[in-house]
Amino acid sequence: MIDRLIDKIRQTGNPTVVGLDPLYGMIPAKIKNKMLAKHGKTPQAAAEMFIAFNKGLIDALYDIVPAVKPQIAMYEKYGFYGIRAYIETTSYAKEKGMFVIGDVKRGDISSTASAYASHLEGTEIEGEWFDIWNTDAVTLNPYMGYDAIEPFVKACNEKDKGVFILVKTSNQSSVDFQDVVVQSGSGSGGNKTELLFETVAKHVSQWGANAMGKSGYSKICAVVGATSGTGAASADYRQKVRKLMPNTFFLIPGYGAQGGTAADIREMFDKDGGGCIVNSSRGIIAAHQKSDKYNDENFADAAREAALAMKADLLSAL
Amino acid sequence: MIDRLIDKIRQTGNPTVVGLDPLYGMIPAKIKNKMLAKHGKTPQAAAEMFIAFNKGLIDALYDIVPAVKPQIAMYEKYGFYGIRAYIETTSYAKEKGMFVIGDVKRGDISSTASAYASHLEGTEIEGEWFDIWNTDAVTLNPYMGYDAIEPFVKACNEKDKGVFILVKTSNQSSVDFQDVVVQSGSGSGGNKTELLFETVAKHVSQWGANAMGKSGYSKICAVVGATSGTGAASADYRQKVRKLMPNTFFLIPGYGAQGGTAADIREMFDKDGGGCIVNSSRGIIAAHQKSDKYNDENFADAAREAALAMKADLLSAL
Repeated sequence: MIDRLIDKIRQTGNPTVVGLDPLYGMIPAKIKNKMLAKHGKTPQAAAEMFIAFNKGLIDALYDIVPAVKPQIAMYEKYGFYGIRAYIETTSYAKEKGMFVIGDVKRGDISSTASAYASHLEGTEIEGEWFDIWNTDAVTLNPYMGYDAIEPFVKACNEKDKGVFILVKTSNQSSVDFQDVVVQSGSGSGGNKTELLFETVAKHVSQWGANAMGKSGYSKICAVVGATSGTGAASADYRQKVRKLMPNTFFLIPGYGAQGGTAADIREMFDKDGGGCIVNSSRGIIAAHQKSDKYNDENFADAAREAALAMKADLLSAL
Repeated sequence: MIDRLIDKIRQTGNPTVVGLDPLYGMIPAKIKNKMLAKHGKTPQAAAEMFIAFNKGLIDALYDIVPAVKPQIAMYEKYGFYGIRAYIETTSYAKEKGMFVIGDVKRGDISSTASAYASHLEGTEIEGEWFDIWNTDAVTLNPYMGYDAIEPFVKACNEKDKGVFILVKTSNQSSVDFQDVVVQSGSGSGGNKTELLFETVAKHVSQWGANAMGKSGYSKICAVVGATSGTGAASADYRQKVRKLMPNTFFLIPGYGAQGGTAADIREMFDKDGGGCIVNSSRGIIAAHQKSDKYNDENFADAAREAALAMKADLLSAL
């Protein structure tokens, strides 16, 4: 998976992943009215709006952007119709040749983790396999430890898929736990300290050794925010995570709407300008709401223009 | 919510929550064959099996058990049909008067957390509200900090719902991060140390002060495992969590199949034998596979007998 993603980034010359995180308020009036007329004021109508909106975005982006990352929460909000919209979205993006990262942030133990691993490996029923979710990779939460990761590592190797494990997130209160000062080294001893996300980073790097791609990067990837909240992690945090995880590919949220700039994240890339993919959601998919030039009719053009501007911004800094 | 849950536990005299975590291999042959005949070897067939199986279990349990906790991973495995089965399950359990805890372990930031909060508050479409998920409470992951919790706290207060935040889980590798030694006190200073789950426990207790019920317990509850993995947390861990979270209601996994005994968890209850609900999943819902007395035909009777045995075991220790 990681080699496929890296190839795709090279093909498009663009280390961007577009977050397909639709909100009801972003939907162009034409789509909204059509679906309300067809399905009434129902969760099904909202789900159908998301499908139409996403297809328009994917059509406008698939030749210039390597990957999309639908945030499943936005779809779960509308129950099983929403989940169907998520699956139709991942399926359509795959058809168009895009790399699909399911932003599900799951994390649970043993038999439960195995069930969640269906996001990558699909589901078997009486000897027949179904690729239910159509995702190349998913995001995972590490709080429960390796138990919660292991079934996914198996899927990464057997089905050429990938995971992005949360190491340091870009929200303000990521500092609550990710930045607590912990004693490094073994168990209760040791004088050295580090922040919790550094401990997590070391584990992710170790786990990754079991699922290396040919590119020199592992299929066990990390989420590391462009911004680091307001806590102990400081400017050198971005150099630090790269140093702690030299063979780990990064998914970087926090660019744009959350305040991170291209200059900020330069240090997280490797010396060849690789090793990272940068996420933008609202900045691209809601671009039609931020300029007088665009409106509901040409929302897809607005997204394409915003994506090209982001590409230029990133490349100028690398 | 917390007062409703506590009342329900008193009514049934049983601090048990049954984990409705079906696996394909647990489904009685009669149900399996019927659904395969009707829907073929499809995810829809599996989902319909789960609905029939769960309804049988709920019918056998609702008068002796106060609550159920469906683990959404088991349903997600079958895509949107699976999600529909989850929702039909929560809906049927509510109809029967049970308290429903959605074991979703979600955790994400800002607008994403608000979308996930639909699990508690439902979803609004053009001024109309839909209670999509029918759950009284959900489980949450704290790794991203308070940002990821806040929208749920709002829902807890406005819609009388609850959350159970992961503090210490019962799996072996919970020690990877939950047991790292952290410096307590503010930021980088301080000589005192504690384990990470203790830091999380303190936060959960503080957050809980904003959503107290009349019972003296908060609507912001905690997940604390009956067993603590193999790490630094030791026998006194169970007294410790109660001390750190005196007004926090506990959901306790790890009883039975995962090795925790009633005697183990006694210390986590308050002096009146309240303040906790203990989960069992396989031990109850797959009881028909563990005794020659039962078979596929009477799986529900097996579950009822196992639930009554668990109740007796818990009450004998309290």
